[in-house]
Amino acid sequence: MRTLTSYLLGAWQTAAGEPSATLVNPATEEALAAVDRARDLAKATAYGREVGGPALRRLTFRQRGELLAAMSKTIFAAREELLDLAMASGGCTRGDAKFDVDGATGVLAAYAALAETLGESPWIIEDEAASLVRTSKVRVQHVSLPRHGLAVHINAFNFPAWGMIGKAAVSILAGMPVLSKPATSTCLLAHRIAEILIDAAILPEGAFQLLVGPVGDLLDHLGPQDVIAFTGSATTGARIRGHAGVLANNVRVNIEADSLNAVVLGPDLEQGSELFDLAIRDAVTEMTQKTGQKCTATRRILVPEGLLETVREVLCERLADVAARTGDPAVKGVKMGPLATAQQLADAREGIGRLQADATIVRGDPERADFVEVPAGKGFFLEPILLEASAEAALRPGAAFHQLEVFGPVATLLPYDGSIDQAAAIIRAGEGSLVSTVYSDDRAFTTAAIAELAPHLGRLVINDEKNAAGAFSPGCVFPQGNHGGPGRAGCGAELGGSHGLSLYMQRTAIQGGASQLARLLGRGAAS
Amino acid sequence: MRTLTSYLLGAWQTAAGEPSATLVNPATEEALAAVDRARDLAKATAYGREVGGPALRRLTFRQRGELLAAMSKTIFAAREELLDLAMASGGCTRGDAKFDVDGATGVLAAYAALAETLGESPWIIEDEAASLVRTSKVRVQHVSLPRHGLAVHINAFNFPAWGMIGKAAVSILAGMPVLSKPATSTCLLAHRIAEILIDAAILPEGAFQLLVGPVGDLLDHLGPQDVIAFTGSATTGARIRGHAGVLANNVRVNIEADSLNAVVLGPDLEQGSELFDLAIRDAVTEMTQKTGQKCTATRRILVPEGLLETVREVLCERLADVAARTGDPAVKGVKMGPLATAQQLADAREGIGRLQADATIVRGDPERADFVEVPAGKGFFLEPILLEASAEAALRPGAAFHQLEVFGPVATLLPYDGSIDQAAAIIRAGEGSLVSTVYSDDRAFTTAAIAELAPHLGRLVINDEKNAAGAFSPGCVFPQGNHGGPGRAGCGAELGGSHGLSLYMQRTAIQGGASQLARLLGRGAAS
Repeated sequence: MRTLTSYLLGAWQTAAGEPSATLVNPATEEALAAVDRARDLAKATAYGREVGGPALRRLTFRQRGELLAAMSKTIFAAREELLDLAMASGGCTRGDAKFDVDGATGVLAAYAALAETLGESPWIIEDEAASLVRTSKVRVQHVSLPRHGLAVHINAFNFPAWGMIGKAAVSILAGMPVLSKPATSTCLLAHRIAEILIDAAILPEGAFQLLVGPVGDLLDHLGPQDVIAFTGSATTGARIRGHAGVLANNVRVNIEADSLNAVVLGPDLEQGSELFDLAIRDAVTEMTQKTGQKCTATRRILVPEGLLETVREVLCERLADVAARTGDPAVKGVKMGPLATAQQLADAREGIGRLQADATIVRGDPERADFVEVPAGKGFFLEPILLEASAEAALRPGAAFHQLEVFGPVATLLPYDGSIDQAAAIIRAGEGSLVSTVYSDDRAFTTAAIAELAPHLGRLVINDEKNAAGAFSPGCVFPQGNHGGPGRAGCGAELGGSHGLSLYMQRTAIQGGASQLARLLGRGAAS
Repeated sequence: MRTLTSYLLGAWQTAAGEPSATLVNPATEEALAAVDRARDLAKATAYGREVGGPALRRLTFRQRGELLAAMSKTIFAAREELLDLAMASGGCTRGDAKFDVDGATGVLAAYAALAETLGESPWIIEDEAASLVRTSKVRVQHVSLPRHGLAVHINAFNFPAWGMIGKAAVSILAGMPVLSKPATSTCLLAHRIAEILIDAAILPEGAFQLLVGPVGDLLDHLGPQDVIAFTGSATTGARIRGHAGVLANNVRVNIEADSLNAVVLGPDLEQGSELFDLAIRDAVTEMTQKTGQKCTATRRILVPEGLLETVREVLCERLADVAARTGDPAVKGVKMGPLATAQQLADAREGIGRLQADATIVRGDPERADFVEVPAGKGFFLEPILLEASAEAALRPGAAFHQLEVFGPVATLLPYDGSIDQAAAIIRAGEGSLVSTVYSDDRAFTTAAIAELAPHLGRLVINDEKNAAGAFSPGCVFPQGNHGGPGRAGCGAELGGSHGLSLYMQRTAIQGGASQLARLLGRGAAS
């Protein structure tokens, strides 16, 4: 069996000693590859900073954008191979695999397009020069420049392609070299993409390194110009942010962690409307796509009390259809695959147990063992599980469905009285989420939703009848919109078009005489 | 003796039990007041969030700006009393006191002016609506809204007026209620300003609370919508950022900590020029204003080797003049007062000892005991101390002057070869600073300085001959410019005009149909 190794210091490392893990197909448990354990992480961090950093900074934004465009094309050319690999190694259906792989090429293309607007400048001008004192000619103007450090990307298992490439696209456009560490369980796809990109020799030496296997002592080697962008569990996030060296060196940290994303069916929503159908379709997608293993998946479904029975009935019916077609994603007709690992399955089952303290299962059997064309006892499968709470429980901030993210095809129906006050109280109980969605044509309700819900969210989707036909499912993260939310979601921010660059740049005030500033900064006039 | 108490839950607390500290005049050691120890911090944090927050959010930016303007006028009306208090309680000369107190009214006025540009909107529109997919009508647009939490401000002893009011101005304009904790040793001035503002009943109930004395269990009560803005030592900063509850709840934290600010005399600088005189004048100001107790004070002075002797000679002469006029700031003609506390003096003397491992004192006696009109053995005085390192030591990243901020009238001359490469290496060795300054008319040098130095700084001041007459001393922080630097400086950002608001706001992507977004967000069209 092949052992995957890291790409560090300009070379694929030679596997040495015991592998750190064995990767399996989560539908069949067939072994796919072993994973090495890297050393020399002090040298690798220095290499990124000292070789990759200056090489990227010598390029303009436009030139770095050309690198992203080339990466996008190169990955797209290998699309079929990568989709197959995602299906075999990640438990993905072909649709899930596209979501991940095409997401990666898409974010590269979007940032390549943004690069053109930033042009040939070595920096981004953030604002106009401001006068300090009325009578003075001294001005101050803010400029963003790439940080002189290394961007360490620690990614989650659920999006080995999009997670790695999305972070890398923004970092490289900003001008910061990357050391990317995919989650071990699904790193086969990330490793293959890295191989393809490195074979194509698109990026300057040192601009992209790949670390597979354990993170080791990586964090001990980070300094004041470095950045950590982490996606994963809140527990690991807190450990990274609280790491002694990270604190001592004030390493910049961005975390994207747990999130109890909600959807709010508005007080005016009626069965039979296009908006109602959208809400139901989105709920099913956001529970079952990637087997519910998306940080933006819907976990809480707020339904006006009068609509509860209808919604429950329709949802249960749709979910039953997915449940009947859950199995090996290699098989035609299968709509949902397994969870990524045995541990994920155990955690999800345990989490469902905890949710049942405050809610009741209205559909699905967490212990179901037979799935489409799966050998008996094999695979890490969980069918869609819908729970429901009482209106009273829904308003209890300590309830498990407000506190615990079960990372699988699991959501809870929460009845509310249709008021923005109750909707806001329920959203707030999640203590910060990546995204929530409102389905309503009631303008007072949606306007109030912006004021009351948005501060608790990284993204707020507002769907109305007019736009229902063309709406995207809320869990789909576009590079133009902010990704990252307050509180439980990690208090981070990624993507969001040009906003995303700021994670990898230092915004500095440049102070000087008015004419002097115009002369010095003028050539960086973009943005 | 009077005991200062906290203003919490809408009332001045009654002093109870042993005071937590006794405040003294640092020039005479005369006791001035005692300081209480507050309880009920869980209730106070909830009160700010639940009473102050909604009250501020009901106001528009323009209305909140009117509050700031009223605060500025009210403080200005008490200016003479406040200057006297700063001199008696903070070791300030009248000039130092003005720098602090007028800084406070200035930042309020600046943010009041900014409020007018933000107008009647309940939110700030951050960008134009972006298309997600070419053929779709779905758009995303970023909007910033006030966070629904409490802003906890933990301030340093050196600017009891400006520190407290500068943070409060931005927070209140953003729409977040404040709980402000001044450093104990100089809290007499902060407490008096709070009294004056509370007596004037300008702010809505709950929008501003004052905590004097120890921070107690305050951090245990903070949640996902709260913000901590801390100014002080790197050690305390790391403790706040690493606090278990702060990590668990992903409280947003901004830190402004140690900083080894540098000035770079350019390779073209010549004695006799106006720019040379400015560089010398600034160096003296930045070493001795507030007795060197400014986070933006100059600690490292880079001098081309050929100019070293001249600079040393002129600086020593000017510093000797300040040394001869160091004493009780209440006395006319005194140019520099004492350090703030006995501990600060002990720390500064110890720090000078550590600097001497890598540099030599060329002027000043750290143990000098007699000062202008100070009773023998009284006061926490330190005369200006200038050190000098060899060119070789200057390039050693581990040298004490690159690592240790001595918080007093202390700086080190560092010879360099006049190249931007050496200047950048020396600046980088400080591992992140609030501000550095270049004095040069060499355009290639100043342009390279932006690219090479700015990423290590929160602010870069560039002075040339033409603007020398009107330049401000680099340690002067204007509200229009970013304050906060990477790495050692805490990896934070405050002020900087409208940029400063983002610390207290959540930037959320709003996603929906194009016409719907225009309708919903249109009325928040400012910015």
